[in-house]
Amino acid sequence: MDYRLYYSPGAASMAVHWMLIEMGIPFDVQLVDIDAGNQRNPDYLQLNPAGRVPTLVVDGAPRHESTALLMLLAERHPEAALAPVPGSADRAAWLELMIYLANTLLPAMRDWFYADVDGDPAGAAGVQALARRRIEEACDQLDAGLADGRDYLIGGKLSTADFLAVVIMRWTRNMPRPALGWPHLARYIRGLRALPSFIELNAREGLTEWRNQDD
Amino acid sequence: MDYRLYYSPGAASMAVHWMLIEMGIPFDVQLVDIDAGNQRNPDYLQLNPAGRVPTLVVDGAPRHESTALLMLLAERHPEAALAPVPGSADRAAWLELMIYLANTLLPAMRDWFYADVDGDPAGAAGVQALARRRIEEACDQLDAGLADGRDYLIGGKLSTADFLAVVIMRWTRNMPRPALGWPHLARYIRGLRALPSFIELNAREGLTEWRNQDD
Repeated sequence: MDYRLYYSPGAASMAVHWMLIEMGIPFDVQLVDIDAGNQRNPDYLQLNPAGRVPTLVVDGAPRHESTALLMLLAERHPEAALAPVPGSADRAAWLELMIYLANTLLPAMRDWFYADVDGDPAGAAGVQALARRRIEEACDQLDAGLADGRDYLIGGKLSTADFLAVVIMRWTRNMPRPALGWPHLARYIRGLRALPSFIELNAREGLTEWRNQDD
Repeated sequence: MDYRLYYSPGAASMAVHWMLIEMGIPFDVQLVDIDAGNQRNPDYLQLNPAGRVPTLVVDGAPRHESTALLMLLAERHPEAALAPVPGSADRAAWLELMIYLANTLLPAMRDWFYADVDGDPAGAAGVQALARRRIEEACDQLDAGLADGRDYLIGGKLSTADFLAVVIMRWTRNMPRPALGWPHLARYIRGLRALPSFIELNAREGLTEWRNQDD
């Protein structure tokens, strides 16, 4: 196995980076300085024509879409047991949740942060208002699912869904209603943030916000 | 295997319905009359709290998210060979494309058609303008990928990605720029629409638009 992750601190790449650290497998990283616009460098656009992070080079081929990368890594490394195996009782729920996070929360987050870049700034307020509504509805739904006291979203154990959900929840930290304001979600987030792999992830990405010691 | 599909003609359920027909396996269907608002009936909300289609009842448990259902069916029925198997050369590209369709095109379509229902009608024009831009960019990208003359999106053969892409493309038929206006996409769509399973799908859902004989 040969992996190189192109990442930006705190971006969607963070979920993939977290998984790679948690699995304890060898990989290289390459910082893409988004503040400097380096995601639009010709060299990077060859790897990722959309100019986004993450890109994960897998056995020499550049691959994209954080949700897909998490699913790909889970099936390439069954020994890490970070997804229910096909045919198991929790498999359908895992697939459904991964897709829900991918097609509800990720696009709403894109809208919240990039409405004026992706579209006409004149329409951005309407886009952001709808995005906020959807993000808060998703927090309601995740919180309700965690109300039984569970520590992980799927199957009683850590999975790719947790990496993706927690990284997305991190993005709410400066929104009008941060995810930590939902009680069950807050307990869940604090539990995941206590993992050694999350602490290591923050250290490697140089992040000093939204750790358990910060809030 | 025991499947019951709750569907509405032409909705996202159509991709799952198409796959079930293509596989030639037994399943039941149950019409959800969206025009009559039956997706909000208490009985249906018990199966699908979001009040959307599809719901696929799998071995007695209701499952959601069309993209996830296609992926679940593919792995439950490897003999149908409607997805590259794990570890195969095309697997990563298939996962990436399924997620791309799920987190780019599906949400943009939701925005295009439901901006005024999901959000404040005052902001709907801005939401729809951005949605249209994203849908047309995705058509550009799909068209470019098909420019080599390929008949299927992934791996030289029919897969779940084709069911999802073609059903989404069908929704563009009354948009300012229908997908049939892109040359490679049009060739691809006409090829897929010629499949016996697509013809049977339209007959079973009572659809008489956007078949090869219609345009």
